[in-house]
Parts: sequence; C-alpha cells; structure tokens
Amino acid sequence: MERAIVKPRTLKGFRDYLPEIMIPRERLMEQSRETFRSFGFIPIDTPSLEYLDILSGKGSDETDKQLYHFTDHGGRAVGLRFDLTVPLARFVAQHINNIKMPFKRYHLGTVWRGENTQAGRYREFVQCDFDTIGTDSVLSDIELILVINSLLTKIGVKRFSIRINSRQILSGLLDALGLACKAVPLLRCLDKLGKIGRQKTAEEMVSHASISAAQADAILSLSDCTGRPEVVLTELSNAIGGNRDAELGIDRLDQVITGSIAGGVPSDRLILDVSIARGLDYYTGVVVETILDDLPGLGSICSGGRYDNLTGVFTDQHLPGVGASLGLDRLIVALEKLGEISASTTTASVFIPFFDASRRNDYLRLAMILRTYGINVELYSESRKLSSQLRHADERGFGVAIILGEREWDAGCAQLKDLKRNTAITCRYSHQEPFEILHAVRSILDKPPSVAAYKA
Amino acid sequence: MERAIVKPRTLKGFRDYLPEIMIPRERLMEQSRETFRSFGFIPIDTPSLEYLDILSGKGSDETDKQLYHFTDHGGRAVGLRFDLTVPLARFVAQHINNIKMPFKRYHLGTVWRGENTQAGRYREFVQCDFDTIGTDSVLSDIELILVINSLLTKIGVKRFSIRINSRQILSGLLDALGLACKAVPLLRCLDKLGKIGRQKTAEEMVSHASISAAQADAILSLSDCTGRPEVVLTELSNAIGGNRDAELGIDRLDQVITGSIAGGVPSDRLILDVSIARGLDYYTGVVVETILDDLPGLGSICSGGRYDNLTGVFTDQHLPGVGASLGLDRLIVALEKLGEISASTTTASVFIPFFDASRRNDYLRLAMILRTYGINVELYSESRKLSSQLRHADERGFGVAIILGEREWDAGCAQLKDLKRNTAITCRYSHQEPFEILHAVRSILDKPPSVAAYKA
Repeated sequence: MERAIVKPRTLKGFRDYLPEIMIPRERLMEQSRETFRSFGFIPIDTPSLEYLDILSGKGSDETDKQLYHFTDHGGRAVGLRFDLTVPLARFVAQHINNIKMPFKRYHLGTVWRGENTQAGRYREFVQCDFDTIGTDSVLSDIELILVINSLLTKIGVKRFSIRINSRQILSGLLDALGLACKAVPLLRCLDKLGKIGRQKTAEEMVSHASISAAQADAILSLSDCTGRPEVVLTELSNAIGGNRDAELGIDRLDQVITGSIAGGVPSDRLILDVSIARGLDYYTGVVVETILDDLPGLGSICSGGRYDNLTGVFTDQHLPGVGASLGLDRLIVALEKLGEISASTTTASVFIPFFDASRRNDYLRLAMILRTYGINVELYSESRKLSSQLRHADERGFGVAIILGEREWDAGCAQLKDLKRNTAITCRYSHQEPFEILHAVRSILDKPPSVAAYKA
Repeated sequence: MERAIVKPRTLKGFRDYLPEIMIPRERLMEQSRETFRSFGFIPIDTPSLEYLDILSGKGSDETDKQLYHFTDHGGRAVGLRFDLTVPLARFVAQHINNIKMPFKRYHLGTVWRGENTQAGRYREFVQCDFDTIGTDSVLSDIELILVINSLLTKIGVKRFSIRINSRQILSGLLDALGLACKAVPLLRCLDKLGKIGRQKTAEEMVSHASISAAQADAILSLSDCTGRPEVVLTELSNAIGGNRDAELGIDRLDQVITGSIAGGVPSDRLILDVSIARGLDYYTGVVVETILDDLPGLGSICSGGRYDNLTGVFTDQHLPGVGASLGLDRLIVALEKLGEISASTTTASVFIPFFDASRRNDYLRLAMILRTYGINVELYSESRKLSSQLRHADERGFGVAIILGEREWDAGCAQLKDLKRNTAITCRYSHQEPFEILHAVRSILDKPPSVAAYKA
C-alpha cells in the first residue's frame, strides 16, 4: 500500500534541537541540577497537562490568552502548563501532608505559551525553577542570590550582573508620595522602563494612573537609583527613610547583600536597581533579574523573588516562599549568539575505525574494555576505507582514534592518533593487557588543549 | 479580590513525582544518557507538539485513537507525540542534509497516549530511545543488544533476560508452511501468545486467518522454540533450513549472538524466543524484548529491532535502521514494586543546622567553602532548636551534620555527627583552614555503609 508523502516540517514557534545544540543543552540542564542539588534542593515533576481550572486565571491576562487548551477524550477541559509556578502551587497544596517544610524544590520542565514568536522566543521552552517554600527567613532570600551566582558560574557565563530590588522599597516609595492606592497601574508602567525609556514611561504614568507630571518625575527619579548597593541603600535611606515599609525593605536588602557577599558572590556583580518591579501582583519582597553583560538587550535570563502566598488559590493555608526561574532555552539562544556553543557532534572522545571486517568481534571487545574503564568510545558501524572513517572522526570532533588493522592485530599493537594535534604513537595491545593503550588514551585526552583547540 | 478555592488535583492517568521517586528517576535518566554516550550516541530533541498529519496514521489504529490532538490558536490541527520514532523519522527527513550517516541518536522525551489506565500505565510517560540510522551493518544490531545490557546493568538491575528473535525467521517459517500471504493477521495473533496462551492463540489463528488447526499447530510448535540461542538455532536450522529468508535470519542471529557475547553480554542472559513478533508492519530484522526475571508479568521494559525504511512517509529516500526504547517510567514502577527505590529525600549529604542566629553569614560561608570542594550541603533555612533540626536531618537521610554553636565558633572547632552510625567527633574549623573538616566529612561519607544502612 503506497502512502502519500507528508512534508516533514515543524510548527511555527517550535524547534528541533540538532546534536550540536542538544549536547551543550543537556550539559546546561545537568549543571543546573548539580547546582540545585549542591544547595540541597530536591527535584519534583508534575504533569504537562492539568485541568484547565488549575491553570487559567493564575498568571496574567496574557498567559490566559497564550494557554494551549482543549477538551480531552473524557470531555475534560485541559491545558498545557505555561510555567512551573502554578503547578508547584497545586502540587504543594495537594501533597502538603507528605512534604516537609521548609520545602526546597527544583523542577526542570517544558512549558508552552502560544505567544507571538520573536527572535529567540519559542512557544515551547524549558524552565529551570528552584524555590524554598514555607519560610520567611532572610537566609532563603540570600540563597536565591547564591544559587543564581553559582548556576551561571557553573554554566561558564563570566560576565553577568544580578540586579536586585525590593517590593517593600517600591511600596514605601509610592506610599511616601501618597500614591500607594495607584501601585498596580504605576508599577505596571514602571516595568516597561527598560523597553520604552523614561520619557514614554512618564507619559504612560500620567495618562494610565492619572498622576501629575511632577509625581511621575518623582517616581522615576528614585527608581533611577541604580548602582552599587551600599551607595544606593544610603541614597534611598535619605530619600524615603522614615516610611516603615521602605525601612524594612532597606534593612532586609542590606542583609541580603551582605549575606550574598559572605556566601561568595563578587560584590561588583550585585546591582541595586530600584526600577525592577517584576510581576508585581505576585512578589512581596526581594526581586531579582540576571542580565548578561554582553547581551543586555536580551533581558533577564534568570528572574524571581519572594512572595507571601504561593498556594492561596488552592488552599486556605498561607505559604510564603522565594525562588527564581532560569530560562534555559533563552540562555541557549544567547550562547549561540555569543558563539559559545562548540560545534562538536560527538559525546565520545575515542573513535575506533572498523576496517578489518574479519575482526568485528575483536573491535567490539576492545570498545567494551575501554568503556569498562570509563572511556566513551564510538566504534564505526561499517567496515570502510580507513581514510574516510578518519575524516568522519575529524569532522565530528573526536579526540583520539585507535587504529587496528590486520597487521596490528597480528603484531599485538595499535596506532593511536591524536586527532587534535595530528600526531600518532604505537602501543602494545591485547584484550588481556589493555593497560598501555588505556594509559596512552588518557594522557592524550588529559593533555591541556592548545589555544586554538580550546577556542573551538 | 477573593478568588474561589480550586481543588488541587491531577488528571486521571497523570501523576506527580515526589522527591523520593524523582531523585532515583533523575538518576535513571542520567544513567541512560551516560550509557548512550559511552557508545557514541548523540542527543536530539524535537517538539512535543507536531502537525497532526505528521503523527496520525503513523502508528497503529490504536495509537491514532489515543492521540491527544486539538486545533491551536492559528487554526492548525496539532497533536502531542505518542512516541519518539515518528518524530525521529520526521526529523531525519527534514534535516537529512545536516546529519552525518550513520546517525546514532538518543532521545529522552515525554510522550502522551490517552489509553485506558491500568496498574503501572500512565497517559504521560518518558521514553528513552536510541537508534542507529543509515546502515544495514550487523555491528549495529549487535550494539542494540550491548546497549540494552549496559543500560540495565548501569541502572542496577541484576536479574533480566534479553529475548531475541528475527523477523526473517518468522517470514521464513510462514513461507515454509505456504502461509506467507497471511503473515499480517497470523503474526498479530502470535503477538498475543504471551497474554492469552497457546489454546486461544490457535483458535484465533484459525478464525482470523482462515487456516487449518494443523497449520496453527505447526506455527505454534516452531514458535514454541525458546531457550539458549545455540540450541534453538540448530533446531530451527533443521526445521526450516532451506528456506532462504529463514537461513539469512538464522545466520544473522548467529552473528548477533556471537558479537553480543564478545561485547560482554553474559551468554545466559540471551534467550532466543521465536514467538516474539513485535509491531510487525515496521520491523524487518532482529527484534528484541527485555524481561525483568522478578517481574515477568510486567512485559518488556526495553524493546526494539531492525527496520528497513524509517522515513518512507516523509521522503523518497529509504533509510534502514535499528534501535530500541526503554520505558523509563514503567521501569520506575517496577523498581517501586521490587522495593528498590530508597526513601531518601535529600540530594545533599551534609546538613548544617542553623542555630546561632548571629552567625548567619558564617554558616553561609562554611557551606559555600564545602561546596567549592564538591560537597553538596544543605544549610537549614531557619534558626531553630538544634534537636528539631537534627531530627529533620535524620528523617530526610543526610549522612553528616556539622554542628557549630556559639561555643564552637568561639573555640574555632566544630562537631561532626555521623548520622548513619550515630557517632560524633570534634574537628578544628576556621574559614581559612577548612581542611580538617573537609577530610573528616569525606572519610565519614566514604566509609562503607553497614548492611542495615545499605538496605535502606
């Protein structure tokens, strides 16, 4: 029976990950997990599909519009999760009796948003979230900063800033100006400052929140405060000290900054930026964004903050928490742009050409012996001309090729080609005595790469 | 604004993974990746959502019925993938010019099937697939067996069997009986042998394929052949040798078995079982199932085989391949049943109680110093009574607690509690000289566990 050919294609806003991107992507995911674990965060997973009433009305109007939803075979209204925070809230409310507080969890998961696609934005992407639930402790606020710092450092990002603010300072600022009742529209405007600039933000504040130009200017002057935390904290203290919210916010931020530095964050990486508002309906304390110094226009790649009431929609219990989300696929796009994704398409370092067809089982045995000693080995699938196999190995980025032809098998030796430096040596080899070859392979792979190889 | 409380709940057939299951689940996924990489397989990822015409009509009638599908915001008919093979075929056809053949890829991904839920079956589950595309080489057939063996061994499964058959042998068998034209219905019946037994299978063969009872008996007698490969191969050779398909199949299986043993598979783990038919429309060569010896009723947890034409639906190019799929979440259910999932709910081995509130920054610094040396450390979030913090640490399964109160900070020392053995020692500690504590922590963690601790 002939079937018609279906054109192979992916949906708009969705992408395939080819090996050259997927290899570093998997590494980033594993480095994220390792970082979270090093602080004692523990993993959970939740279904991609949830009852629609769990998801809808939980984010913004925008996330509601972007929700992928449908009716399933059983007639249930269901949706694909658009973040990992709503599922966390549902999870905690549902399993509250099986969870020990404080609950430090991490969650790597795919989320879906049917948003308009722009450069670097996809409708399906992986988020890496970590949160500490069930405590007001400032220590958890500090850990938020420490984890972000360790995470990006581990991933190998060198130039980045962690921009910090406090929701309490913003409240105090508005309160001091007699504008507390207009906090929601004003902070929504403020959130756009980075995108649309000061002039337009002021105009929007005047028109959307019915305040005077002078009031808008006062807000923007204070929220202009950005820079080294100790300097900005003093400025703020002088400007809005005396307001109780603001003073609590200033004192708490001071503890967060001091603790972060004690915990190893370089002080010049921390910036206090009073203009950061972030999803205001939700956050109540410290808020944070992470900016790549070489790609500031990309926006924050790791954002979060403290909130008062995670699970309010699902239970009467009030649970405070603090956490952040790394936009992993956004970071991948950034690293692609910065040329920091290597073009290697191999996960093995050793390549064995298969060219003496009669020795197939001996090649298999050699490969398995090396694997037993922790070395990743690819044995070529077909017996072909050596030169074409070596070209394949070179293009894919292997480090070492172990060459054993009829002559070598008979003589009990092997040629080792160092593919990065284009040199070769001969070793003895037999299945019973593999140690000389093991030692030689390791010493080639452990050799510090030349500058050129390192850049590639 | 008060919102109504939404009852927190998950959809039927979907499950949350709590930390005590998610910790081993993440370990299994990482062990799978490490195994695939050790053979040089490279990772890809594809979207969860595909155009519906990519997915529908590609599996069986059953998978079509089980497909989660809907119309998206742009009016496109879309579906959630039900396996990773159809996306692989689409991927290879679409990126054929950017892929080097032979293409050895692995893919860990979530798939969805709206099937009736039974014990141990979910509507959302993770599959771990590996395939070698673009070669007919028997070496890749052998690697199929080697990877399955390494994978389960790495995961820690000790008692399992790899059951092998060949589609060519089945074709030859039917051909020899003059029943080649009835292969499809007959092998569909044969596939049920394990579930419904010999008597019923014979009856179905007679009624569904209009053959005689004697013919049904002849098929079932041969497909009864199961056991040590060298014995069964001889039996088969005597019974249906002379038929060209069967002889090719017998010869190839002989090479696969010999190669697998050369590559390190214990020979008593390999069973030749002529009744294995597996998704017959698709497979053309070797087929394989993996059975846990302690839970044979669970069915195969890792299955696959060789096929001729992966991408036929998407391109005119014919690409052969061989691969298998580990049902990871099914294996998790099995390990839960066998009591092989440990109840630990920590990813860190060291616990630091936080009980001298004035020393918060010193605790943060101590924790970060230990992390720098590769030790996972959880610092408790709140300063509470020591005894309640230690009880928490004990319940969660930490190995070591490092106790530093006011007296210890002043004296420049720390108490180390070995939580598994309930012993304690005192070490010197200062941020500048952390080596004594590092050494002591490592020697406690590296100590072989007692038999009781090992079982827990």
